[in-house]
Amino acid sequence: MSSSFNGGVKFSLFGESHGKGIGVVIDNLPAGEQLNVEKIGEFMARRAPKKDGTSTMRSEKDIPDILSGIYEGKTTGTPLAAVIFNQDQHSADYGNISHIARPAHADHTGFLRYNGANDPRGGGHFSGRITAPLCFAGAVCGQILSSRGITTGAHILSIKGVRDDVFDPVSVTANQLETVKKRLFPTISENAEAKMREVIASARESLDSVGGVVECAAVGFPAGVGSPMLDGLENIISRLVFAIPAVKGIEFGNGFECADLFGSENNDEFAIKDGKIVTKTNNHGGILGGISSGMPIVFRAAFKPTPSISRPQNSVDFKTMTEEELVIKGRHDPCVVPRAVPCVEAALNIALLSALLENPSIPEV
Amino acid sequence: MSSSFNGGVKFSLFGESHGKGIGVVIDNLPAGEQLNVEKIGEFMARRAPKKDGTSTMRSEKDIPDILSGIYEGKTTGTPLAAVIFNQDQHSADYGNISHIARPAHADHTGFLRYNGANDPRGGGHFSGRITAPLCFAGAVCGQILSSRGITTGAHILSIKGVRDDVFDPVSVTANQLETVKKRLFPTISENAEAKMREVIASARESLDSVGGVVECAAVGFPAGVGSPMLDGLENIISRLVFAIPAVKGIEFGNGFECADLFGSENNDEFAIKDGKIVTKTNNHGGILGGISSGMPIVFRAAFKPTPSISRPQNSVDFKTMTEEELVIKGRHDPCVVPRAVPCVEAALNIALLSALLENPSIPEV
Amino acid sequence: MSSSFNGGVKFSLFGESHGKGIGVVIDNLPAGEQLNVEKIGEFMARRAPKKDGTSTMRSEKDIPDILSGIYEGKTTGTPLAAVIFNQDQHSADYGNISHIARPAHADHTGFLRYNGANDPRGGGHFSGRITAPLCFAGAVCGQILSSRGITTGAHILSIKGVRDDVFDPVSVTANQLETVKKRLFPTISENAEAKMREVIASARESLDSVGGVVECAAVGFPAGVGSPMLDGLENIISRLVFAIPAVKGIEFGNGFECADLFGSENNDEFAIKDGKIVTKTNNHGGILGGISSGMPIVFRAAFKPTPSISRPQNSVDFKTMTEEELVIKGRHDPCVVPRAVPCVEAALNIALLSALLENPSIPEV
Amino acid sequence: MSSSFNGGVKFSLFGESHGKGIGVVIDNLPAGEQLNVEKIGEFMARRAPKKDGTSTMRSEKDIPDILSGIYEGKTTGTPLAAVIFNQDQHSADYGNISHIARPAHADHTGFLRYNGANDPRGGGHFSGRITAPLCFAGAVCGQILSSRGITTGAHILSIKGVRDDVFDPVSVTANQLETVKKRLFPTISENAEAKMREVIASARESLDSVGGVVECAAVGFPAGVGSPMLDGLENIISRLVFAIPAVKGIEFGNGFECADLFGSENNDEFAIKDGKIVTKTNNHGGILGGISSGMPIVFRAAFKPTPSISRPQNSVDFKTMTEEELVIKGRHDPCVVPRAVPCVEAALNIALLSALLENPSIPEV
Repeated sequence: MSSSFNGGVKFSLFGESHGKGIGVVIDNLPAGEQLNVEKIGEFMARRAPKKDGTSTMRSEKDIPDILSGIYEGKTTGTPLAAVIFNQDQHSADYGNISHIARPAHADHTGFLRYNGANDPRGGGHFSGRITAPLCFAGAVCGQILSSRGITTGAHILSIKGVRDDVFDPVSVTANQLETVKKRLFPTISENAEAKMREVIASARESLDSVGGVVECAAVGFPAGVGSPMLDGLENIISRLVFAIPAVKGIEFGNGFECADLFGSENNDEFAIKDGKIVTKTNNHGGILGGISSGMPIVFRAAFKPTPSISRPQNSVDFKTMTEEELVIKGRHDPCVVPRAVPCVEAALNIALLSALLENPSIPEV
Repeated sequence: MSSSFNGGVKFSLFGESHGKGIGVVIDNLPAGEQLNVEKIGEFMARRAPKKDGTSTMRSEKDIPDILSGIYEGKTTGTPLAAVIFNQDQHSADYGNISHIARPAHADHTGFLRYNGANDPRGGGHFSGRITAPLCFAGAVCGQILSSRGITTGAHILSIKGVRDDVFDPVSVTANQLETVKKRLFPTISENAEAKMREVIASARESLDSVGGVVECAAVGFPAGVGSPMLDGLENIISRLVFAIPAVKGIEFGNGFECADLFGSENNDEFAIKDGKIVTKTNNHGGILGGISSGMPIVFRAAFKPTPSISRPQNSVDFKTMTEEELVIKGRHDPCVVPRAVPCVEAALNIALLSALLENPSIPEV
Repeated sequence: MSSSFNGGVKFSLFGESHGKGIGVVIDNLPAGEQLNVEKIGEFMARRAPKKDGTSTMRSEKDIPDILSGIYEGKTTGTPLAAVIFNQDQHSADYGNISHIARPAHADHTGFLRYNGANDPRGGGHFSGRITAPLCFAGAVCGQILSSRGITTGAHILSIKGVRDDVFDPVSVTANQLETVKKRLFPTISENAEAKMREVIASARESLDSVGGVVECAAVGFPAGVGSPMLDGLENIISRLVFAIPAVKGIEFGNGFECADLFGSENNDEFAIKDGKIVTKTNNHGGILGGISSGMPIVFRAAFKPTPSISRPQNSVDFKTMTEEELVIKGRHDPCVVPRAVPCVEAALNIALLSALLENPSIPEV
Repeated sequence: MSSSFNGGVKFSLFGESHGKGIGVVIDNLPAGEQLNVEKIGEFMARRAPKKDGTSTMRSEKDIPDILSGIYEGKTTGTPLAAVIFNQDQHSADYGNISHIARPAHADHTGFLRYNGANDPRGGGHFSGRITAPLCFAGAVCGQILSSRGITTGAHILSIKGVRDDVFDPVSVTANQLETVKKRLFPTISENAEAKMREVIASARESLDSVGGVVECAAVGFPAGVGSPMLDGLENIISRLVFAIPAVKGIEFGNGFECADLFGSENNDEFAIKDGKIVTKTNNHGGILGGISSGMPIVFRAAFKPTPSISRPQNSVDFKTMTEEELVIKGRHDPCVVPRAVPCVEAALNIALLSALLENPSIPEV
């Protein structure tokens, strides 16, 4: 029951939406890894709210203050801690703490879980803001992966049914991943972007919100990393991805589609290409028996529509136990998916570095 | 990188398909819990191969030998270990260990991961057989949940597109769960059963296999259990469900469907019913912010078609690095889904008991 | 391999002696616990350097900045993070990073462990400064214990052979523990204090240092908490106490002395007193089979003399691999023991709260 | 709160003294390590009761049945499980379960901890018998260490004040360790053996028992392995050593003696010898900052006298809450120390392999 993860990489997240600061301590990183702090900032900026109408108007600068773990530009190998001090909090918006549960939020479940003692302002520790330190950790892990020739990337696969192109699970390249993730609105197809922006704008205008799907991939990840049973890549990635609020589903490779196929259709035949073992198709999403096959790792995560909508909703005041109408004020994203893209990528980065570090090889004596 | 789990409940799985024995050590169970060993056997029998053409003809009696942790019919509170000795191994079928990778199996990834030292016979530790001790652990946890009024159950939601009815996410009852899970072929609709049996029979005849989806639910689970971020119910359940070989996707509540909805459609409004806070709909699947809401917990897991099919397949000998045609011999399930139903339920049982035990309440001094 | 602990209480320490900040994230604390921030400060002040000649002249204000986890004066139940920003760093003292290993320090072992990438300034993460956030965590846990009637305390048992009185292992009281820990120089006997101060002063004058033993106890801790084997109270306490640099030994109850006794002398006979089961003697130190007996918990930790002494020492430059004479500059404690007293107490506080929280009781449904 | 350990090596112990079987699952072992099962048996035989009057007359054959994790003589890399079926149980000796707490045993604390549901026969899971699977795990880890040139060994340093010679902390050799551990009564000095045997015989005759100290060492362990703070070698070793019932203290290097020294006496000066950095003395016991220095690792553990003595003792019936005289029947070791020697070594073996495996090196991609 905690906000920490103890794999090959260990990290501990902290902070509440309207508290003094949020952050993360990352432990067990390899020593001597060159980190580019500016690029960490660029990664985190991908998660920051945009001024293009797709997200909240809150300005979250989210500049992380690195307190330890880096010396002369490199990881020390001892814990790396980063803090983001909260600034633009507008607590007036949340002035009188309401006990009317916001539908699809954790107000009521959190109240029960913590006997009413949790910080309720802006969702407290349940806030999507805690994905900022998650992205910090993901950016750090991503740079270490990158220095080993491993590239990860994600894009918006769909928003309320409007679909982008897909990553080709066999031939997606590092370049494609790098290209799409640099886009302000990360889709492969510009046409899809335009339509998605329309859907989002329309939802915002009607005081509503929309959900979507993020597709994420890794290339260059070596074959033979991971484990069967409890610590396979799917186990770790899914555990980390569900740390992102609003995720309700995850699938690897062809995912739920495999349930409708014959084995003869779904099985990926092996072949030799350029002296390496590959599969001709990649329905398995680069993972067999929890272990990487050397093919691109591909998965998708489903995000529900932003729970906070400005329309009146029926609800319950869980202190007075009376039914009440609720109108949520404040600034909210009409769609969290664009900002969720780097979060999913961060989860993957952490999972992959973690798995690499857990390979139990005994160093030479 | 391990086959162990360290939540509120801790367990460590072991064994290889054709080794001497498989089993599990479960640690941290509450003391003094009455266990019905016969009912554990019934739970495990649901996973055993059936003689009705839907599964392998191997007879896996799988009678667990409980070595510790139970005294006078109750849990001692110290580790509970159970072993299933392998008997019907037919290692002749696997006589000359082939290094031709079976498509969609972990032969090659396992070989790489363990530098060729893993037990290759029948998949070794990657075998579906290791779900037998998982079911044992799930049966134990299920009985403890049951004594607290918590009921879990699962059914085959679909097999290659043929769909069963669904659990009503708002009103599914303990009775319905108990009823469906006692069925030899666990579907809600007998009509669906008939059609699914046809699909499986037809796949078997054409030396092929089929996949499907399992839907699983819990009722009676108290609200307020779980955690935000890394140890939420979705994180734990998904980590455990992905321990079952062949799972390629998981979704909670309305899952991937939520990605196509407006917030105003997807949000579950709160209401008061019989003096308790409920939601009118249950798109959230009983989990908000990683914490139980008191509504039924509902999720689905997608299973790929059995990788082992008797049709010739193209593959690669990973020792000689040559492309080879592969014909898999031996007896295999044309569809793992019926036998996977109790496995999914087991994963849920472990996750729920684990979450209950992790609620950090300080005992009275 | 990490600076984190994952028991009932989880925490992750970070920071380097001369980095930007040091701190701790504490996870899994029970929600709704009243915390007195001022008293946390008082606890930490006991660890701060004194101006009385017994410690370094560095002024470490060590005022912790609490970033999360407290709301309206109470624990939220979500992670509690605290940072101490480094101020008085005098990095000039460490200007040219020397690669001459300081005897009894971790300069060389740390260099090897982190491939030369760790922060060497002032010992980096190996510095005794990291016990400041340990004390913070211990102070927090101590307040929660205190609200349940559990009191812990420690004193200097000896410094270079000069001995204080001992806690009576059977009858030590909360009052005695509270009294001794409030003393500037925490001994039971004022006479012992005077002699110890002389020993320390004399060591400082001769550019030398001295070691000592800290004795620590808890009263009011309920019987029946802990576990056999790996997570017993002795296992946890010792693991935590060895996190304090300079500890080289730990013993519980009569400790090493028991090795010289007959069973008939060492066994603590049971009796009934005021309706409760007690032991007439307390050689077992309040722990039997890893579990609390209800008697006072008593243990001792041995501290080596401060490694940093100003006398010339023979050593080796591990970069050039040449033997060199070393003269350590800077300000150093002639004896760490007085400042170590609250650190040992902190380790005990964390261990005891952790054990209390791990009792696997299922909450009522 | 568990009988499992989750370091680089993971293991889970199970079993009760008079249950069906005891054993261990070891996870995360490197794959492809040659294991000599006969030598594992020899290791365990060192822990078995001797017929020479120093131990109980129970015959514990303790032949482990390896169920998984070894294939063609080598570790598979997947979990290795071993079971020892209990045979010679003489439950008649324990026929009517007494609720009179045996002094210095965990009868009462265990009863409280498990609400009276734990298996009380012969101490249940608290029994010293559970050190048999600990020795199995230690023997396995020891062979893997051995193949890397690392040798560990232990001897009886003292029994009730009768002292053996000590390992020279600077120059102890692998040969010396191998020699002493092969002795039936593992002392360095035959003279000491004779005197210790007398002390034990005399205790047995007077229906009493005696305690002692075990000294343990490792040579060949590479420098630079371990960590500061919570996962240092001292933290891990002590946590594992306290899993052995009857241990009441542990000290590294010169241990408690360091508390009486000046820094100038205690500091181990560095020098270069044969091109390697060494220390001239080894008060630090081969560990600085939690990390190995390359010098021999040396520590000592204190064992209390066997609690079970045949003399009448005063005690309490914790069910009836009345004071009662207790006379313990059955066969008991007058001194556990000779049989504890391989247990301490086993704890060290597990700790060292665990630390080696946790060095977070990223494999080449």
